Amino acid sequence: MTDRLEAQFAFLNEADRLKSVLRATTLCDASRPENSGEHSWHLALYALVLADQAGPGVNIDRVIRMLLLHDLVEIDVGDVPIHSQNGTAHGSAETQAAEARAAERIFGLLPGDLRDDLRALWEEFEAAETPDAVFAKSLDRVQPVMQNLACGGGTWATYDVTFDQLESRVGVKIARGAPRLWDWVRCKVRPWFG
Amino acid sequence: MTDRLEAQFAFLNEADRLKSVLRATTLCDASRPENSGEHSWHLALYALVLADQAGPGVNIDRVIRMLLLHDLVEIDVGDVPIHSQNGTAHGSAETQAAEARAAERIFGLLPGDLRDDLRALWEEFEAAETPDAVFAKSLDRVQPVMQNLACGGGTWATYDVTFDQLESRVGVKIARGAPRLWDWVRCKVRPWFG
Repeated sequence: MTDRLEAQFAFLNEADRLKSVLRATTLCDASRPENSGEHSWHLALYALVLADQAGPGVNIDRVIRMLLLHDLVEIDVGDVPIHSQNGTAHGSAETQAAEARAAERIFGLLPGDLRDDLRALWEEFEAAETPDAVFAKSLDRVQPVMQNLACGGGTWATYDVTFDQLESRVGVKIARGAPRLWDWVRCKVRPWFG
Repeated sequence: MTDRLEAQFAFLNEADRLKSVLRATTLCDASRPENSGEHSWHLALYALVLADQAGPGVNIDRVIRMLLLHDLVEIDVGDVPIHSQNGTAHGSAETQAAEARAAERIFGLLPGDLRDDLRALWEEFEAAETPDAVFAKSLDRVQPVMQNLACGGGTWATYDVTFDQLESRVGVKIARGAPRLWDWVRCKVRPWFG
């Protein structure tokens, strides 16, 4: 049991480093950039509160578990903002390969059974094919939109984003997992772009 | 539906403020104080990874939900460190009354059904009587111990804590929900106190 606990805490102490990974998005009051640890907490809370926006077959507890894990690879790779490099960096093959190496290292700190379970959950999130993963991805896209709205534009201004770019890079993915939610958010966002 | 989403997001945007509530404990690298938002994320991850330490009848998904919510009242009340005022402030009647008022206000932002469900979950955590709440409380006590160990003493040095005080204020509560975990952590901690 001692070896098992050593491995469990090697992972949990390593996870602490996610609190030092900074995102492009700020807090709602624009006081500082958000970090990926607190972002993961906020997203899990989004899942709990917006569960009624999920489609049939979505298990909110699995969504929450995914969201708790989804950014851990950023400990090695950092956050790649959606709108950086004109929207091309986020899903690039290079980023995906680096994230796979990070997953191997970070989940590899865990005892074998946990390593396999949690890594499979992260891979399911990344693949964005199951209902749980599609809904989790929708929440991951909607939260920065709400943070930007709260602070008067945020990363839209930083990256000179147009409404069409927001709709294609972000709106489409929100709508895929939570269509009614995107309808509502879209109406909130549209006036900001004039 | 629009009114409902307005209320859901009033709560989620208010929750963002928990990221600005600072705790006595630092990150593992001692670079800065931890905030209560990222602490809540880390604890939920603790629940996921240390599920095998829970006693019979514990539902880890309910524990995770509790831990996501457990510190929201600190938006109004702030964090009250376990070892402050020689260990007397944390559970005082004054603190408890302030936290109850905060819960009324913060959960009150939600639509009625969600307000009732999430507030009940927070109250269950606070009461620390059900197996889920007892295990959640154990994790809430063990995480700062691990952070202190990682950074060479942390709040034990700040508050001049003795091993006996640590055992009575913290160890007893860890042992209540996760006895094998406290046995292991106790051995790690003992040498620090000489």
